[in-house]
Amino acid sequence: MAEAVETMDGWYCLHDLRTIDWTSWKLASEEERQAAMSEFQSLITKWEQVEQEKNGSHALYSIIGHKADFIFMILRPTMKEIGEVELAFNKSKLAEFTIPTYSYVSVVELSKYMVKEGEDPEQTPEIQARLKPRLPKWEHICFYPMDKRRQGNDNWYSLPMEDRKTLMYEHGMTGRKYAGKIRQIITGSMGFDDWEWSVTLFAHDALEIKKLVYEMRFDEVSARYGEFGAFYVGNRLEKDEVPAFLYV
Amino acid sequence: MAEAVETMDGWYCLHDLRTIDWTSWKLASEEERQAAMSEFQSLITKWEQVEQEKNGSHALYSIIGHKADFIFMILRPTMKEIGEVELAFNKSKLAEFTIPTYSYVSVVELSKYMVKEGEDPEQTPEIQARLKPRLPKWEHICFYPMDKRRQGNDNWYSLPMEDRKTLMYEHGMTGRKYAGKIRQIITGSMGFDDWEWSVTLFAHDALEIKKLVYEMRFDEVSARYGEFGAFYVGNRLEKDEVPAFLYV
Amino acid sequence: MAEAVETMDGWYCLHDLRTIDWTSWKLASEEERQAAMSEFQSLITKWEQVEQEKNGSHALYSIIGHKADFIFMILRPTMKEIGEVELAFNKSKLAEFTIPTYSYVSVVELSKYMVKEGEDPEQTPEIQARLKPRLPKWEHICFYPMDKRRQGNDNWYSLPMEDRKTLMYEHGMTGRKYAGKIRQIITGSMGFDDWEWSVTLFAHDALEIKKLVYEMRFDEVSARYGEFGAFYVGNRLEKDEVPAFLYV
Amino acid sequence: MAEAVETMDGWYCLHDLRTIDWTSWKLASEEERQAAMSEFQSLITKWEQVEQEKNGSHALYSIIGHKADFIFMILRPTMKEIGEVELAFNKSKLAEFTIPTYSYVSVVELSKYMVKEGEDPEQTPEIQARLKPRLPKWEHICFYPMDKRRQGNDNWYSLPMEDRKTLMYEHGMTGRKYAGKIRQIITGSMGFDDWEWSVTLFAHDALEIKKLVYEMRFDEVSARYGEFGAFYVGNRLEKDEVPAFLYV
Amino acid sequence: MAEAVETMDGWYCLHDLRTIDWTSWKLASEEERQAAMSEFQSLITKWEQVEQEKNGSHALYSIIGHKADFIFMILRPTMKEIGEVELAFNKSKLAEFTIPTYSYVSVVELSKYMVKEGEDPEQTPEIQARLKPRLPKWEHICFYPMDKRRQGNDNWYSLPMEDRKTLMYEHGMTGRKYAGKIRQIITGSMGFDDWEWSVTLFAHDALEIKKLVYEMRFDEVSARYGEFGAFYVGNRLEKDEVPAFLYV
Repeated sequence: MAEAVETMDGWYCLHDLRTIDWTSWKLASEEERQAAMSEFQSLITKWEQVEQEKNGSHALYSIIGHKADFIFMILRPTMKEIGEVELAFNKSKLAEFTIPTYSYVSVVELSKYMVKEGEDPEQTPEIQARLKPRLPKWEHICFYPMDKRRQGNDNWYSLPMEDRKTLMYEHGMTGRKYAGKIRQIITGSMGFDDWEWSVTLFAHDALEIKKLVYEMRFDEVSARYGEFGAFYVGNRLEKDEVPAFLYV
Repeated sequence: MAEAVETMDGWYCLHDLRTIDWTSWKLASEEERQAAMSEFQSLITKWEQVEQEKNGSHALYSIIGHKADFIFMILRPTMKEIGEVELAFNKSKLAEFTIPTYSYVSVVELSKYMVKEGEDPEQTPEIQARLKPRLPKWEHICFYPMDKRRQGNDNWYSLPMEDRKTLMYEHGMTGRKYAGKIRQIITGSMGFDDWEWSVTLFAHDALEIKKLVYEMRFDEVSARYGEFGAFYVGNRLEKDEVPAFLYV
Repeated sequence: MAEAVETMDGWYCLHDLRTIDWTSWKLASEEERQAAMSEFQSLITKWEQVEQEKNGSHALYSIIGHKADFIFMILRPTMKEIGEVELAFNKSKLAEFTIPTYSYVSVVELSKYMVKEGEDPEQTPEIQARLKPRLPKWEHICFYPMDKRRQGNDNWYSLPMEDRKTLMYEHGMTGRKYAGKIRQIITGSMGFDDWEWSVTLFAHDALEIKKLVYEMRFDEVSARYGEFGAFYVGNRLEKDEVPAFLYV
Repeated sequence: MAEAVETMDGWYCLHDLRTIDWTSWKLASEEERQAAMSEFQSLITKWEQVEQEKNGSHALYSIIGHKADFIFMILRPTMKEIGEVELAFNKSKLAEFTIPTYSYVSVVELSKYMVKEGEDPEQTPEIQARLKPRLPKWEHICFYPMDKRRQGNDNWYSLPMEDRKTLMYEHGMTGRKYAGKIRQIITGSMGFDDWEWSVTLFAHDALEIKKLVYEMRFDEVSARYGEFGAFYVGNRLEKDEVPAFLYV
Repeated sequence: MAEAVETMDGWYCLHDLRTIDWTSWKLASEEERQAAMSEFQSLITKWEQVEQEKNGSHALYSIIGHKADFIFMILRPTMKEIGEVELAFNKSKLAEFTIPTYSYVSVVELSKYMVKEGEDPEQTPEIQARLKPRLPKWEHICFYPMDKRRQGNDNWYSLPMEDRKTLMYEHGMTGRKYAGKIRQIITGSMGFDDWEWSVTLFAHDALEIKKLVYEMRFDEVSARYGEFGAFYVGNRLEKDEVPAFLYV
């Protein structure tokens, strides 16, 4: 039985992906559409207030391809608040013209693989900031869920702690090369959703996302132990851009 | 041929997950919605009477994410009664505004791996209480189905009884650390549904769900032999909260 | 190249699973619903006549859970008649309110693994009765399709005939313990449907289904070589119970 | 790097499977239904003319089970003509009442594994007839796609040519036992569709389909190297039978 | 940890596949249909202007089979422009009669496996032309996504660079045989979509597509390390042919 490394957990997280039913959106009256857009912008304004009060954070991006038209990602201190944000959106006018295509429930997580001896992570402000992060307002998002493999000789959960530590350290070194280019939020989802973790990357230049994911694929921890779900990529959608995005 | 350990079986169990069609729900008249909510609350009242008479138990939770909006979990002495509860809900007004997204048919099960020699489980009141449990009214639920792996060298059903006993004992020890924080209901579903077991966890603090599932993932029985289906997580929904939850 | 054991084949078989669209069923007029129910009962009466004339057999059960609301299982001497029964149901009034969710095309099959030397199975009345069976009218049904595994070292179709015979014999011995409690119909479906066989179990007590499937899972033939599809479980639905089942 | 055996390619092939939306079909007026059936019969007449002119061939069968209600299989000299046949059906009246459930794009193929030394297959009339076949008008059809496995030690594409030749020869010998009972059309689909080949079997007696597929499953080429998709089975539907088949 | 080979990246790419809802298309008025077709042709004209200005390229093909009715493939310098093209189509009249069935987000990619020592690819005009290609106007298209396998002993990402180089070189030699017959566009999609690469083949003769994919399947890099998604094949659809294609 391998020893489980402890994790530190921060805010709860919901990734919520929606497709727009453009045909029924066009069939709505101009008034209905205006009402739906205003109400959605009000929701975003509320999210912004929560963010300013440091009680959560959020991100809104359009998504490329048929898998979704937009994503909102929400961070909140409790599972209950996550449910409330989702319910409020579901009851909104805009939701009548959207189809939920994917979602992900998780909690911001840092593993203690890289905690230095003698350090108390609960007292480290930088760690606290990473557990309750303000999501960056960068140009591009990439979101995907993942597992660590448990298959034949490639079983992450049977590896000794030291080996896992070494592999994670190497992996972290690859990530560090992208400092300033990519911001990465890791959330844990065991018991909350179908994969074990989710990864959300923010980038100024979309190509850096591909470069990072590509380079990491050769890290042993990904090559032998990574299992990946669907990848969603998109462009930032600011509150003010919503009417243009939805204009028909 | 490995020896099958005997199981003890209690009440039959239905997990029933539904998504709300919010658009048609809003299109309904206020009277229709009131009627649907009252009828649903009456159904819950009937379930409560059954629970008080110790002829069954139930749980109602909202579910986070696109996979479902709520779950009801029903325990009854016979498969026939399980079918009747499902049929009654399907015929209810509220059901017209919901889409069944997942369900699970099983029976509360305890394995005899940990029965002490000389003990007669049929005569042990604590065991009888666990086979016909009153579901806890705690804040959070987590539900997922699972299999024991049968793949190459990782074949649970080919392991000698003693090895399975040892692995299950270790696993039980991990679970015991969460006493008072997590209540766990195991149901068996071979011949009844697509996976071999279902696990339902109840928690006061949602984070304990993640901690338990995470820690257990390193137990050899999970690391090498566990295969997991979809995970559903949610917040308790009391009968009195139903109108607010459904208010549009 | 392993030697294929011969099979004996009897009646063709269709498992047909349907979900009821309760919302449109309620929207239908009382007259429409009455007409649909009468017509369906007439269909069942025709099936009963065929059964009495020993030209086929059938079973009707409600199914628990979201995968289907009911199943009808039909045995007939030819593939053409199977198609005619399906087409007649599809054209019926009730079918307008149902959605086909699964079906399975196969033929009742007995393998010759257990034929004794010197015995001529074509002349054995008991074998002929098993190939053209009258389906039992017991309380519960369990239906699932399955394959024999062909993966790495676990390749059923590469095993020598003698080994397959031994494994099947052991498996048969497990089944025999449930004589009187479970009746089992095996159908072969290679070339007819997506899995290699289907298994249909009939039981007075639903728990016996779980016990049988559970105990058999430890037989080497299942543990190493069994791959299982979805499981459907349900309660008997007699012709006279149809109106109550469909009453809204 | 194993040597690829050359293939000979004939007519392009489309398998097109459709489910009938019986409810909307019944809602159509008698005139609409008559028009749809006449138009479909005219389409078939055109296909018959093409067949008589030896510019293609076709087959029409009803399909048993929920996966489809009927299949048409079309052979034509070019990919463009295949697209035209499909487009013509899609624009027909009957198509308004059908839902496409599966299709398969491929080209009739013969491998050169069994070409004798010194033989020039391009000059062999029997081979040319097999590449541009007139599809038999037999009672039953069975259609399924398949791959050759590339997994661990079971990797068809890494086997030396000689081994592949031997395995294919054995397989051909099994097939030959069914001469006169089964006609088999193999089409190749690499680059055209999701599997590598499709197999279409025609039989007078449906049971011969099962016997052939079952016996072949024990051939090493299937047991170790065969991966199979969905199987579709059905009964012949002649042009004159279309109105009865569709009568409501 | 294996060393990652660097890639060169060019234009962003969207493959967008749509099915036509022929029934609602027929229900539209002649004016609506004319408007939808004119608008779509205007969109294509805009794409042509972009292509002439060397700011992108595009391709439009009808697709055979039920998976889609047509594909448009779009190349643009930024992810943002890709999103804009998709959004413009989604808001168009024609889109009201189409259902998105698949899409793929990626970026034109050349690996440096075959860069000669001393060569500076950024300064090589031929390489630049391949990174920002004008898509050929050939008769047929084939599109499919793919991964490099990471499974047991067949783990591409754990191979030493030299071995990968050798395997890719061999693979390139197979491709070179089809020069003039097949044009191949490789795009990378790690972090952008669910597979690692997409392959798009253009051909004058559809059979060359099958021959290429078939022959390559025997290359060790495909046989041991290739995992393939769905294959889409189709015929060229010129702007002027759109009205005939859509005529009902």
